[in-house]
Amino acid sequence: MTPDPIAAVDAAYDRIEAEGRHEIWVTLRFREDALSEAKIIAERVAAGEDLPLAGRVIAVKDNIDVAGLPTTAGAPSYLYRPAADATAVARLRAAGAVVIGKTNLDQFATGLVGSRSPYGAVRNAWDPTRISGGSSAGSAVAVALGIVDAALGTDTAGSGRVPAALNGIVGVKPTKGLVPVTGVVPACYSLDCVTVFARDLALGRLVAELMSGPDAADPLSREARPDAVLPSRPRVAVPADEHLAGLAPGWREAFTAAAASLAATGVQIVEVDITPLLEAAKMLYGGAFVAERYAAVGAHIEAQRDQIGTGLDPTVAAIILAGASPTAAQWATDTATLAHLGAQGRALLDGCDALLTPTTTCHPTLDEVAADPVGVNSGLGRFTNFANLLDLASLAVPAGFVDGLPFGVMFTGPAFTDRALADLARRLLAPSVDLFVVGAHLSGQPLNSQLVQAGGSLVHPATTAAAYRLRALATTPPKPGLMRVSSGGACVEGELWRLPAAGFGTFVAAVPPPMAIGTVELSDGTAVPGFLAEPWALEGADDITSFGGWRAYLAATRTKETMTR
Amino acid sequence: MTPDPIAAVDAAYDRIEAEGRHEIWVTLRFREDALSEAKIIAERVAAGEDLPLAGRVIAVKDNIDVAGLPTTAGAPSYLYRPAADATAVARLRAAGAVVIGKTNLDQFATGLVGSRSPYGAVRNAWDPTRISGGSSAGSAVAVALGIVDAALGTDTAGSGRVPAALNGIVGVKPTKGLVPVTGVVPACYSLDCVTVFARDLALGRLVAELMSGPDAADPLSREARPDAVLPSRPRVAVPADEHLAGLAPGWREAFTAAAASLAATGVQIVEVDITPLLEAAKMLYGGAFVAERYAAVGAHIEAQRDQIGTGLDPTVAAIILAGASPTAAQWATDTATLAHLGAQGRALLDGCDALLTPTTTCHPTLDEVAADPVGVNSGLGRFTNFANLLDLASLAVPAGFVDGLPFGVMFTGPAFTDRALADLARRLLAPSVDLFVVGAHLSGQPLNSQLVQAGGSLVHPATTAAAYRLRALATTPPKPGLMRVSSGGACVEGELWRLPAAGFGTFVAAVPPPMAIGTVELSDGTAVPGFLAEPWALEGADDITSFGGWRAYLAATRTKETMTR
Repeated sequence: MTPDPIAAVDAAYDRIEAEGRHEIWVTLRFREDALSEAKIIAERVAAGEDLPLAGRVIAVKDNIDVAGLPTTAGAPSYLYRPAADATAVARLRAAGAVVIGKTNLDQFATGLVGSRSPYGAVRNAWDPTRISGGSSAGSAVAVALGIVDAALGTDTAGSGRVPAALNGIVGVKPTKGLVPVTGVVPACYSLDCVTVFARDLALGRLVAELMSGPDAADPLSREARPDAVLPSRPRVAVPADEHLAGLAPGWREAFTAAAASLAATGVQIVEVDITPLLEAAKMLYGGAFVAERYAAVGAHIEAQRDQIGTGLDPTVAAIILAGASPTAAQWATDTATLAHLGAQGRALLDGCDALLTPTTTCHPTLDEVAADPVGVNSGLGRFTNFANLLDLASLAVPAGFVDGLPFGVMFTGPAFTDRALADLARRLLAPSVDLFVVGAHLSGQPLNSQLVQAGGSLVHPATTAAAYRLRALATTPPKPGLMRVSSGGACVEGELWRLPAAGFGTFVAAVPPPMAIGTVELSDGTAVPGFLAEPWALEGADDITSFGGWRAYLAATRTKETMTR
Repeated sequence: MTPDPIAAVDAAYDRIEAEGRHEIWVTLRFREDALSEAKIIAERVAAGEDLPLAGRVIAVKDNIDVAGLPTTAGAPSYLYRPAADATAVARLRAAGAVVIGKTNLDQFATGLVGSRSPYGAVRNAWDPTRISGGSSAGSAVAVALGIVDAALGTDTAGSGRVPAALNGIVGVKPTKGLVPVTGVVPACYSLDCVTVFARDLALGRLVAELMSGPDAADPLSREARPDAVLPSRPRVAVPADEHLAGLAPGWREAFTAAAASLAATGVQIVEVDITPLLEAAKMLYGGAFVAERYAAVGAHIEAQRDQIGTGLDPTVAAIILAGASPTAAQWATDTATLAHLGAQGRALLDGCDALLTPTTTCHPTLDEVAADPVGVNSGLGRFTNFANLLDLASLAVPAGFVDGLPFGVMFTGPAFTDRALADLARRLLAPSVDLFVVGAHLSGQPLNSQLVQAGGSLVHPATTAAAYRLRALATTPPKPGLMRVSSGGACVEGELWRLPAAGFGTFVAAVPPPMAIGTVELSDGTAVPGFLAEPWALEGADDITSFGGWRAYLAATRTKETMTR
């Protein structure tokens, strides 16, 4: 069923207002402009056109051109007004998506933290004291908060994957060249990939596929090759013990659990020495390759040196200006070294369908990054930095929570294994749990974002069997309490949501008293997990069953308040 | 039929002595060593082993390791003694080939002339006042003079193709990475290819195939992909008129004739603008990529600066030392520019199965190169320099003669089209002519090299029908004259040779009086072109028919002289 494009855009802007995360955006379109575009999409759908992204709202990282909106790459001095959409964006718009704005980023896509921007440090969707991850910071958070269905990022060192992990969403980094980079401000032109963030893997893959295909204007763009088909018992490599040292507390255990979940689906897990890959990762910033960043925007920074510390981020400027120093001979030597490391890595992974790693190594606070901008940043790229250097496809997916914050893992494989990686990831994400909600977690209600952030999606509105009563509890925010009764029960309206098991587990663990998760019988006879309440809170609370549901009760109450006033 | 390995090696050394081209070699093995190896091959063949190169004698460019022989890359100061064969060499030896020596080259494979070597300027096989072409100079000349069956070269800028053209032989430059470069002194590691010279395309291709296949020690080595099959009416691009300006006198006409010959075989010729390819070609030495040469051997030259002008060629040293200057940022910019030029080139050639060009632009004398070492050299790479930069396969083949010197053309196509290029070249080479010889052109006789240089090969010994007389002419060198008689004729011994039509044409045009090419009837009843003589020269000449043939007559005469003395 196609979502309603107009309602989708309206919901996105409503959520932007509700969330108040202004730092997500460098440029946000006027609601009316986006609505006009949505209206046209709605009309085209009504006229019978098949638009696979109709009703989908997307955000675009501000180093990717969207016609009519300025591109800054996170630097006000760099601002220009592109005449045309980037090829990737044009393809999504042609498929019916509505772009609502351009998102904040580590300036010139140089960083993995999300705080290297004069437009403000992007705060994590789950914990505003922590980094969003970057460089595609705003895009990841906009998706994680449920503002947009999908968002575009770019990924050179891991910018399309690290923020996915830190915000508990999916980050699709296609094989280099599948998505043209025409209209993208280069970080390292030979390494850059356009990526997709989504809460849902299927949508993320769909968006990536819709953007794929050669473009005459990007000489490095290329056709997909037929994917290798996964064997019935896939082999997935995991790093040997020593390469998992130094992860954030609890992350190693979370990674082991993810590998075990995967093994439980019939995947053979093999431990491999990934030293050559980690050595390759270090070369991205540790050798001559950083010169490609200088080649891209060095002249701009040189010309605007007086802006360093104001419009130009000092850390970013220092990294890029250092790219002027290496010689071409060093580049040649590094290229040969890299080729050897790549061959060693391929040999070690021979016979494996993919490599599973943590996506990143820890989740720093904004303060920690401010104290050591380069050191903290570089640790985050341990498992991501090598992918583009070695021409690998990669896919970051949520894998549960540690201390209430998302933990993510990443499948990485040879170029053109994009679909196989998604098939593997699906095995990990597959266990999902339905949850019936009746109150503050309903769509549009104050706590709904908790479901979205846990990777949840609305299955459909649903109603309990005629065996329940609903009472208004004295909680903050206000919540109803659902109670089963042996007689005199009625049907109560609510919604059925579906969450990844890992997300569900964390969600449940965080449910505060007096709320509880138990079993609710629906009107169709099925029994699903759902919100109940403890007897002590129900006792003496107003019975509001007659309203039919929480939304109707709230509407009536508000009307009454208005009338009273 | 397998050639006799021992006889083949002996013949090679005999020819080396006869030709006196000492500058071909940096290191020549002792005849006895090579013979011992040949003896082992012969025994293995006798024992029933299938060795596809048994009886084949090869030479190896001295930047490719052969165990037991020093490697110099043309610089005495660089000499080292490799413990193992280069992978390419090992594969040929395993197939039964006997390596007889290491050949001279433009130092560090930097040049297209063949005269940048302290081991001596390599003289052209056809005209010793002219350059052999390089950098694989000695290898090409050793093949052209019929010393070896095939020889290995390397090709970064055109070193495996330019000398093939200038010496009238085949130069096979496989797709980059098909033949591993393990054990090869790098010129530009990311661009270097091991190549094959041969007089015969089939042998050249066989040698290339036998060397192909990934090698764990060379991370850039790769598997062949299935070749595209040529359509029934292939399309071959030729450069637009303006790109053929400035060729040596007569070369443009020779190229047009080659294209016309190809068209006559059903190939559709289409004129294309190859500007992007020619621009790419200029980048090999004109930009940052020369830094790869510095990365390879710059440290050696820096450490041996006092040798410049003696053991180190000053032109080569200057080129390589200049490779220290470009920045990595320039390299990055050049890489992006190259990618764009490559895409433009591919777009222009879209729908074509290959590009046909002259292999090089002119055939300078050694004096011309000495007067302008860089300028003359760089002009030679116009059509070759872009192939490896743009990951193309290429094949140089002889295409007739201009002013008595070989002219060559080149088929160039996308990576992995190696076989398709050979199929196209075969159409051009296909017309071949048999020639019956009875005198100074017989194997081992003074003028036999003319047949070899024209691309000829011995079909088999043959005898005339019993209708001829043979007379000893008063020529220098001494030659017999064959004359058909209506009665009293006898059978005369000779050899049947096969030459490419183009080579045959030039050969015939150069036959001096009183010799003539007419039709000779052989003992098997066939009539073939063969050597005859003008009546004025036959008149009064000694009739030597009773000896049965020229060789027997010479042997008897020498014996007589000895007895007389």
